[in-house]
Amino acid sequence: MPDMPRVVVLGAGFGGIGAAQKLRDAPVHLTIIDRNDYHTFQPLLYQVATDELEPTAVGSPIRDLLHRHDSMVFHKCAVKSIDLAKKQVLVEEMSPVEYDYLVLALGATVNFHQTPGAAEHSFPLYTMKDAIRLHDHILKKLEEVDKNPALVDEGALTFCIIGGGPTGTELAGAMSELLHTELKADYPNLPIDEARVVLYEHSPAVLAHFKPKLQEYARRALEDRGVEVHTGTGVVEVTAEEITLAGGDKVKTQTLIWAAGLQANPLTKSLGVELAPGGRVPVGPDLQVKDHPQVFAIGDMASMTDGKTGQPLPGLGAVALQAGHHVGKTIEQLVAGEATTPFKYFDKGNMAQVGRGAAVVELPTGGTLTGSIAWLAWLGVHLSLLSGAEEKTSVFVDWGWNLLTHKRGKRILLCDDDSDDA
Amino acid sequence: MPDMPRVVVLGAGFGGIGAAQKLRDAPVHLTIIDRNDYHTFQPLLYQVATDELEPTAVGSPIRDLLHRHDSMVFHKCAVKSIDLAKKQVLVEEMSPVEYDYLVLALGATVNFHQTPGAAEHSFPLYTMKDAIRLHDHILKKLEEVDKNPALVDEGALTFCIIGGGPTGTELAGAMSELLHTELKADYPNLPIDEARVVLYEHSPAVLAHFKPKLQEYARRALEDRGVEVHTGTGVVEVTAEEITLAGGDKVKTQTLIWAAGLQANPLTKSLGVELAPGGRVPVGPDLQVKDHPQVFAIGDMASMTDGKTGQPLPGLGAVALQAGHHVGKTIEQLVAGEATTPFKYFDKGNMAQVGRGAAVVELPTGGTLTGSIAWLAWLGVHLSLLSGAEEKTSVFVDWGWNLLTHKRGKRILLCDDDSDDA
Repeated sequence: MPDMPRVVVLGAGFGGIGAAQKLRDAPVHLTIIDRNDYHTFQPLLYQVATDELEPTAVGSPIRDLLHRHDSMVFHKCAVKSIDLAKKQVLVEEMSPVEYDYLVLALGATVNFHQTPGAAEHSFPLYTMKDAIRLHDHILKKLEEVDKNPALVDEGALTFCIIGGGPTGTELAGAMSELLHTELKADYPNLPIDEARVVLYEHSPAVLAHFKPKLQEYARRALEDRGVEVHTGTGVVEVTAEEITLAGGDKVKTQTLIWAAGLQANPLTKSLGVELAPGGRVPVGPDLQVKDHPQVFAIGDMASMTDGKTGQPLPGLGAVALQAGHHVGKTIEQLVAGEATTPFKYFDKGNMAQVGRGAAVVELPTGGTLTGSIAWLAWLGVHLSLLSGAEEKTSVFVDWGWNLLTHKRGKRILLCDDDSDDA
Repeated sequence: MPDMPRVVVLGAGFGGIGAAQKLRDAPVHLTIIDRNDYHTFQPLLYQVATDELEPTAVGSPIRDLLHRHDSMVFHKCAVKSIDLAKKQVLVEEMSPVEYDYLVLALGATVNFHQTPGAAEHSFPLYTMKDAIRLHDHILKKLEEVDKNPALVDEGALTFCIIGGGPTGTELAGAMSELLHTELKADYPNLPIDEARVVLYEHSPAVLAHFKPKLQEYARRALEDRGVEVHTGTGVVEVTAEEITLAGGDKVKTQTLIWAAGLQANPLTKSLGVELAPGGRVPVGPDLQVKDHPQVFAIGDMASMTDGKTGQPLPGLGAVALQAGHHVGKTIEQLVAGEATTPFKYFDKGNMAQVGRGAAVVELPTGGTLTGSIAWLAWLGVHLSLLSGAEEKTSVFVDWGWNLLTHKRGKRILLCDDDSDDA
């Protein structure tokens, strides 16, 4: 099949996986490139950090896509740059990869907004490694206090989060539950009641994109779980020992989790096209890059607007997945010489979990749900989003186990390089 | 309860956990110290390396022991030395820990027998980190060949194992199965049929401690699975590119797994007692250290003989666990001023899995089993050995899943520090 067009998909997040799923039976040579060999189910990373799920429950092998698909290739390597003129991608460890169609789905990196010390001392939560690193950091702080209780006064058990969006809000609720249930039992001799979870949001309310009544519910639910919520408060400096708030106050903490914004993968700069705010790649209604009809950009890397409403689309996994499916279909249509259609996002609603059995849901109809019904909806939608049967199973098993026993993951340090076995 | 005796257990392997289990309701202050916060189910580490089980399935949280036991304390830290005269243990990050009764259960380290290059370039399989490191190394080699097939001629897909005991034999069978089933599907474009698994054993037969008919069965089962078995062959030098065999032949390989012997944890040298071969601590029939009736040594750290037969006891998890239980009971008896009894090992038989559905079992009666019946016995005994209900469950789930679907773990690189997310 020498004359089949070459499609290269960069990134195996929701966008890239969506495109690959649509293209796996198309008459093309499909090459997927990602720096990791697994797809990350990002909406649940905060549950890896808080031991509610094991990493393998939210990381699924990209190579599973290859089974029984001979014209599909995956390479685990980092992308160095993209040459739109030569139609090739420069990657590490390999010769350049040439394409006829290119899908840019390399996601984002954390945006620290030039906050001094944030890059060095804060804990982002965007990648699997971020989640494992935060998970291990939390346990290490408890082990340190176990050996030296005086560290509590140094903020060793003060866990701060900046950013009251879904990530920060969901993480705050889960961390508070983790600290005051499982970890309280694991560390019986620790002053765990002195542990604090503090959520800072610079805007006036958490979950800014939700309706006010849901914002209020979420705030109450967090406070019921012992989370200190400070809205209208930003963080202006970060060190290993403390953070400085916009008002000038300093808070002793050894853990600042950064959930306050993303920017497009810096590789967008190598494209030589004019970028939208946040370094995102502007795309047309077919998700095509201006002047490059065979190049598509989707997900956190792109600035997408809805083909129906013309409104900018939010940075959600569901949006990226649908965009990926659309791009896959579009490429298939272009290869077949058929007409293409603009991308229309099918809104399944907006939801966030604030704690076990407590969530907020904004339905596409405009209606809202809260509490355990909302939480079940949240559970259902996330399970339906999961990419593979095996993942569904393992997440079901883990979640089922947690719900039945109110017990979480193993709370152990497997990737802890500090502890030496030798 | 100020006047309760202080019992310190060093190490949370089978021996330490066994002692802790017996002592958890005894009238003592119990302190457990381990450098990791998890107990490792060592007999199945090779299944972590070969992706048959997830690390969390064979690592169980030590702190689970503390739930509902107020007089029990666990500290995650490394032991620096033991002062039998002052009756205290020197540990990192904490002031010395004093004891009235001490249980030495710190296990072993790998014995490279002064083989040049072995410590630097070979892959032991004794700890969880060893298993994860080997697991990741195998996948990295496949990723390298995926990008540069010429590396096959450099031995990138030649996986060598030295040591034909249970660990080496079980690993060889599992690795060959992994390579020719799951990984063959994961890397459709790789010359995976050129991948080799080579097992070297310096003695005349694999599974030296088993009956000859079982040794022959095991060898056949390995060869049926594509493993190259070389008995009467040792490894005399190791580099990153090749190994040198006793006969002088050199074999190009980038993976030598070291399953050829252990020696006691070097901390035994700090005891100031005369040591047995392998640096092990000699103990009396009550597992007490000579001249130190309140100090016990068990498991891979000790040289134990059977109280009934006077024969030296093998380095098995079952032996260490029973020895731990006996020591726990003995300490309880000493505290209560009761008489103690010598340790008698209850032999449940000797078994090894050579591959899926193939195992060898030597019954205490002298009888033998092979094939799938032996494998079911192997499965049952290992599950009964697992320490906690949750572990049993998760292992059951993983195993059940594997058996039904012939599918393994996630085959992904979660602790891979080479791949940078940022």
